[in-house]
Amino acid sequence: MDHKQENNNYPLILKGTVIWSDENRRYQIVPGGYLIGEAGICQGVFETLPDEYKGIPVQDYQDQLIIPGMTDLHVHAPQYGSRGFGMDLELLEWLNTYTFPEEAKYKELEYAQKGYSVFVNDLVQSPTTRACIFATIHKEATLLLMDLLEESGLVTYTGKVNMDRNSPDFLCEKDVQTALEETIQWIVESRNRYQNTMPILTPRFVPSCSDELMRGIRDIMEEYKLPVQSHLSENRNEIAWVHELCPNTACYGEAYDQFDLFGSKDPAIMAHCVHSGLRERKLMKERGTYIAHCPQSNLNLASGIAPVRTYLEENQKIGLGTDVAGGANLSLFRAATDAIQMSKMYYCYVDSKKAPLTMEEAFYLATRGGGSFFGRVGYFEKGCELDALVLSEQEIPTPKVLSVEERLERIFYLAEKTAVAHKFVRGKQLY
Amino acid sequence: MDHKQENNNYPLILKGTVIWSDENRRYQIVPGGYLIGEAGICQGVFETLPDEYKGIPVQDYQDQLIIPGMTDLHVHAPQYGSRGFGMDLELLEWLNTYTFPEEAKYKELEYAQKGYSVFVNDLVQSPTTRACIFATIHKEATLLLMDLLEESGLVTYTGKVNMDRNSPDFLCEKDVQTALEETIQWIVESRNRYQNTMPILTPRFVPSCSDELMRGIRDIMEEYKLPVQSHLSENRNEIAWVHELCPNTACYGEAYDQFDLFGSKDPAIMAHCVHSGLRERKLMKERGTYIAHCPQSNLNLASGIAPVRTYLEENQKIGLGTDVAGGANLSLFRAATDAIQMSKMYYCYVDSKKAPLTMEEAFYLATRGGGSFFGRVGYFEKGCELDALVLSEQEIPTPKVLSVEERLERIFYLAEKTAVAHKFVRGKQLY
Repeated sequence: MDHKQENNNYPLILKGTVIWSDENRRYQIVPGGYLIGEAGICQGVFETLPDEYKGIPVQDYQDQLIIPGMTDLHVHAPQYGSRGFGMDLELLEWLNTYTFPEEAKYKELEYAQKGYSVFVNDLVQSPTTRACIFATIHKEATLLLMDLLEESGLVTYTGKVNMDRNSPDFLCEKDVQTALEETIQWIVESRNRYQNTMPILTPRFVPSCSDELMRGIRDIMEEYKLPVQSHLSENRNEIAWVHELCPNTACYGEAYDQFDLFGSKDPAIMAHCVHSGLRERKLMKERGTYIAHCPQSNLNLASGIAPVRTYLEENQKIGLGTDVAGGANLSLFRAATDAIQMSKMYYCYVDSKKAPLTMEEAFYLATRGGGSFFGRVGYFEKGCELDALVLSEQEIPTPKVLSVEERLERIFYLAEKTAVAHKFVRGKQLY
Repeated sequence: MDHKQENNNYPLILKGTVIWSDENRRYQIVPGGYLIGEAGICQGVFETLPDEYKGIPVQDYQDQLIIPGMTDLHVHAPQYGSRGFGMDLELLEWLNTYTFPEEAKYKELEYAQKGYSVFVNDLVQSPTTRACIFATIHKEATLLLMDLLEESGLVTYTGKVNMDRNSPDFLCEKDVQTALEETIQWIVESRNRYQNTMPILTPRFVPSCSDELMRGIRDIMEEYKLPVQSHLSENRNEIAWVHELCPNTACYGEAYDQFDLFGSKDPAIMAHCVHSGLRERKLMKERGTYIAHCPQSNLNLASGIAPVRTYLEENQKIGLGTDVAGGANLSLFRAATDAIQMSKMYYCYVDSKKAPLTMEEAFYLATRGGGSFFGRVGYFEKGCELDALVLSEQEIPTPKVLSVEERLERIFYLAEKTAVAHKFVRGKQLY
């Protein structure tokens, strides 16, 4: 902590080939640029070092690429140990067969300590600097995860999950009152304990949450002013089930919105939105709901392809999620290229009028798109919080002379674990 | 070479959890099994060490997984330095914009040395033990690549590319006679030079090869008894072009078959087969044509999704290709999971009667399916050539206790570069 304080007390100057997205989702590139931060806040990127900073040590990364830290808008920490297998089922069966039994083990703090340590260590090594994380229903294990996250230097929202119906006995809250009391205790404890680790309300998804529970979560949201995260329109069977459970609503989104949990009051992130129709998209737009696009999970669970081009055309709020363990990979490099690849299949097989995502757009989603959930995050303008990655191409030699854009694209596609050489979060260097 | 001879002169005994595919594409698993080779030939996998091998040193890998080496049925070595960028174009434009100008540089041996060294080094580190490789039109650079491959210990077919029409001046053979003469010189030189590195005839694809060139390649095939590799039905515009160029043929496959280059005499590998209709599939089946399924390339170039389930139902000969640089990744772990993911999108958007590939099937394709092009390769029965990988899970810790099948699936999905701890090719340990 002392080290962090120190770091924030004098300007940070990083020199390299600096790249970020402007608001039109186009690259801004400054070769040999000076990226300057003070007290964790970006002061801008300059072609020459401004006079006022002369004499201050420069961390000179030569020609290495420097890009904003990335935001993972949707990831399940307790599923990290289960990533990469059990890919033969669709959502609802997958949850019952693999996911729920595994999450139940996180009642035991010893198991949670093991699993969450692996997750947090790998998250630090990944290109992610910000994340919105699902824990489990277990208050103590969730606080343990938040302790590890706080220690890591990453900035996260983490949610104790709420679920009180259609859930197995071994992973179901005792009753609504207990669920809400524990949720409040968790919020109070976490609010006093952390600087970079914030609670987020996390009703699992409509099928798992009774109306009474949802109403209670709304009350907590209003009292504590917390954002919300959940799942939306991921799988066709799931959507049909929600329609049965909530016959009074015209779309899945309304099943959250009727309890003000769709962004109408505090911000809401909805993961997936693969099959959101016109009415739901209109509601998302009105409420400013964040879409966490999780392409690899949608592939692995055969959920389908989200209409990302449509979301961009509609100017929806959207970023990327890895959705481990629906997605196997924790890297947003991979999520970004998965998003491009999926959009090409959408173009081939669903709607040839919807152009595939470009690399610039995928870069935007991974950095500024998702980052905006955290405020002015994920780009390098004056006043932004300074999250930055210095990239290495050492592991991917080529005889070819490449443009800056080609070098960046290549790092995304090759998604080497070693690509992130140095990471800075809120101006603090993690490594 | 001495070291290799020595290695082949005494039995090789590897102990671990041994896994391979049977002919029904199902796992065979022997925990604590002894995989035994003599003179590079598999003697079988045994639950207890047979008496005749007692006293011979055992390489004991404890509980580590031991699987067959994998076969990459389609990869372009000179495109390796260009992988991972320029993914915004479809096939024909992509070739003209990125690929052809890059391949032209391989005329210069110094450039070829740099590029091919990187390729071969990475191929050795990958799970591939066998590969069918496209070089360029340049004879000397192709021999240079083959020198590096021979040195590596991998077993490969490598082709000097033929192309004499619809090609840019800077990457086009001078005339048919020169093309054929150089091809023969290359074959003769390479036949005298290598043990593990074999020539394969490589007409680039129908649009690049005149009828006269194709006839000449047929004559060479008949004289030298060489297999053939090319491209087939990858992209809709390409297919339409072939239809214009060869109005006498009813499908793209016939444009090869009319010159006996579709497997009717010597074996042929056709990459992609994304849009092969009934007539073409029937011809492939009759000719025993090998399909190199290259899922990631088909994604990146928005070519479409090959009907892999149909090919399996038809008992076509089929394996996987990375198709670098249409595909960005050289790892067949990744190609196998890409194939599963693509098959799920095929199921979602093209034909819900075609079940997605299972992990067992993808494993089969990566090992035994493609390996069979090289003979009895890619599995562990008595008489097979012994290519094996010892896998490491050190980089992917989990608190969960996993089954053997889950461990294997996880290695494929997480595709860590460090997963291949030891590699054996024809009984020789490369590392």
